[in-house]
Amino acid sequence: MAEHAAWKTPEERHARGLDVLKSVDGTGGEKVVASLADVSPELGRQVVGWAFGEIYDRPGLVPRDRQLVTLTALGGCEPQLDVHINAALNTGLGPEEITEALLHAAVYCGMPKALNATFVAKKVFGERGLLPVGGEPTG
Amino acid sequence: MAEHAAWKTPEERHARGLDVLKSVDGTGGEKVVASLADVSPELGRQVVGWAFGEIYDRPGLVPRDRQLVTLTALGGCEPQLDVHINAALNTGLGPEEITEALLHAAVYCGMPKALNATFVAKKVFGERGLLPVGGEPTG
Amino acid sequence: MAEHAAWKTPEERHARGLDVLKSVDGTGGEKVVASLADVSPELGRQVVGWAFGEIYDRPGLVPRDRQLVTLTALGGCEPQLDVHINAALNTGLGPEEITEALLHAAVYCGMPKALNATFVAKKVFGERGLLPVGGEPTG
Amino acid sequence: MAEHAAWKTPEERHARGLDVLKSVDGTGGEKVVASLADVSPELGRQVVGWAFGEIYDRPGLVPRDRQLVTLTALGGCEPQLDVHINAALNTGLGPEEITEALLHAAVYCGMPKALNATFVAKKVFGERGLLPVGGEPTG
Amino acid sequence: MAEHAAWKTPEERHARGLDVLKSVDGTGGEKVVASLADVSPELGRQVVGWAFGEIYDRPGLVPRDRQLVTLTALGGCEPQLDVHINAALNTGLGPEEITEALLHAAVYCGMPKALNATFVAKKVFGERGLLPVGGEPTG
Amino acid sequence: MAEHAAWKTPEERHARGLDVLKSVDGTGGEKVVASLADVSPELGRQVVGWAFGEIYDRPGLVPRDRQLVTLTALGGCEPQLDVHINAALNTGLGPEEITEALLHAAVYCGMPKALNATFVAKKVFGERGLLPVGGEPTG
Repeated sequence: MAEHAAWKTPEERHARGLDVLKSVDGTGGEKVVASLADVSPELGRQVVGWAFGEIYDRPGLVPRDRQLVTLTALGGCEPQLDVHINAALNTGLGPEEITEALLHAAVYCGMPKALNATFVAKKVFGERGLLPVGGEPTG
Repeated sequence: MAEHAAWKTPEERHARGLDVLKSVDGTGGEKVVASLADVSPELGRQVVGWAFGEIYDRPGLVPRDRQLVTLTALGGCEPQLDVHINAALNTGLGPEEITEALLHAAVYCGMPKALNATFVAKKVFGERGLLPVGGEPTG
Repeated sequence: MAEHAAWKTPEERHARGLDVLKSVDGTGGEKVVASLADVSPELGRQVVGWAFGEIYDRPGLVPRDRQLVTLTALGGCEPQLDVHINAALNTGLGPEEITEALLHAAVYCGMPKALNATFVAKKVFGERGLLPVGGEPTG
Repeated sequence: MAEHAAWKTPEERHARGLDVLKSVDGTGGEKVVASLADVSPELGRQVVGWAFGEIYDRPGLVPRDRQLVTLTALGGCEPQLDVHINAALNTGLGPEEITEALLHAAVYCGMPKALNATFVAKKVFGERGLLPVGGEPTG
Repeated sequence: MAEHAAWKTPEERHARGLDVLKSVDGTGGEKVVASLADVSPELGRQVVGWAFGEIYDRPGLVPRDRQLVTLTALGGCEPQLDVHINAALNTGLGPEEITEALLHAAVYCGMPKALNATFVAKKVFGERGLLPVGGEPTG
Repeated sequence: MAEHAAWKTPEERHARGLDVLKSVDGTGGEKVVASLADVSPELGRQVVGWAFGEIYDRPGLVPRDRQLVTLTALGGCEPQLDVHINAALNTGLGPEEITEALLHAAVYCGMPKALNATFVAKKVFGERGLLPVGGEPTG
């Protein structure tokens, strides 16, 4: 069963990748791919067909778990991070789980990356009306 | 509630850290801390009291989720990685979930780190009688 | 003596952290913590209580030496870097020492990170009326 | 033309990947894939089918140029580095070009990674009877 | 012959560095060096004299090959990246080779760095009238 | 005065580099350079002439301060790290200052790199009869 994703036809995996990309990243992901069309269409195809149609679509980890991994496998101050914070919310992670994952990652990656990522989360949460997180500011 | 961990007394958080370290990392974690005693006892105390007694023990993410983050927040070829693979198994992640998380992380971190980490996983799985994973070798 | 910081009560280390943060980072550090209040107050508390109240406040290295380490332990293009350049000046490092440390780090981290960090230093030095550094431009 | 690799059937790209892997990495690459069979067969399939059958096999850059990029896109102290040094020789890069590329990368990545990689190169060159490089030792 | 660059007089290597910098990076490189004059003139001198007058000017790899290495030896989201994309074009790499090198590097560095770098390439290609690359957008 | 190092003749800077290398790294540094002679003599010359004869020898930071920066500017698990821990001791940093700097860096780089580096320090301190550090093991 584990290999089913690997053996999709290229057309199937591209179509499946577009669906997964949309369900995970919403319009943010589609915009990233669209903006690659004139500079590196193959990179866009790999994001759709490989990253989403093949890897993301595999069984073994639910999308929520994949986003937990994605949030912290990034270097930390990546421009794509706001797409991934949105994706985390879209796959069922709550704002408190996201900030908690970033705090936990600080133990392993250091405080600066956690701070960078948390400020991106703040921007995304604000855009989606999810601030304040938990409700109580610090002193 | 979120701040309860922050306000433990130092003695409480050290004692709690030892318990969490043991439940998550087993004897592997204790050995790491013990081997710091003559060179940097304070680093050992921070691992116990801060990393495990304060951050790891916070509500918001269950240990299994924290290990998902830990597995991929590491640089990738860290000597501590076998402790963390063991911890992933100890917190309820199965071998297939662990290898799947490392494969997923390859999209974001690149293949070499996924390969390094997967070979550490192989060693740990072998020591715990968990090979082969899933049962079918590739061609 | 080395463990005194580890055994502060949580209230003491938070209060001490606020003092150290202020003395090292000035208002820049306080703003970073304040801006975490609605998104991840616990991350703010960890910056104050752990990073400044516990680690930074330890004996063994004077603040000037800690800032030398901080300047180059960062990835290099961190948004927090201007806070740390300001902190370096606040802890007694002169502009020539700061640019020299960044040049020295280039041997180990590569030229791009040294360039990024030096341009942040230029911005901070400019804001504090410390340009030109040393007085003689290059040809 | 650019999309031809993307539209191979999965069976074609796996078969093609095995050929490319063999031509580039020789037996070293096959051993890496074989050793994944019991722990993460899907990671092995991705190395063969995606990395070699799809990306490496694309037109646009000849294998020699791809190895130049591979040598320095790695973190630096990766266990896979000796496979990649062998691959560089297999794709037509000479020992002097390899050491020169690593020296050039030192400008951007720092001296430690260049040193690590150069010592791996020394081991591989020794195994293939290619030492000394250029012929004259330094004083 | 290999050591000829190492034994230039300091004046020769500085003059040679200015020539190489201009031929490789055009005005972009000169601006970077000029903007270092008031903050760290020695860093500017090292970029000119060491990086360009000594390393870049060595025999063993042609400038086009050096830029292939430079493109991917960078961390990935470096502010200097647009100088290096311009340099890649100036040393004879075509837009399709550049995007192909970045796609190839994604295998080793992960997708986020490839995406960041490709969007910088898009900006540079646009400024030089080189878009679309190859001519056909993706679906 | 700041530029004096930049304008040494190549012969002067090579000779000066050998002296500085010996004073800072002892025989460890000479061995590293010697082992480059047959694989990349130019990299060895750059370590001696540039890193030590030019950058390390500059005024502006004393050797002790340069080693503080070096210790933490490294990636963290570099094979060269034991040379640099020895160099730190040789330039006047005590074992407690070294472990303290590594603990401080953990805030910015994460715990795994601090642990890796501290275990290298433990090995070096043991070889030089400097264990235990400070005298009291942790519980």
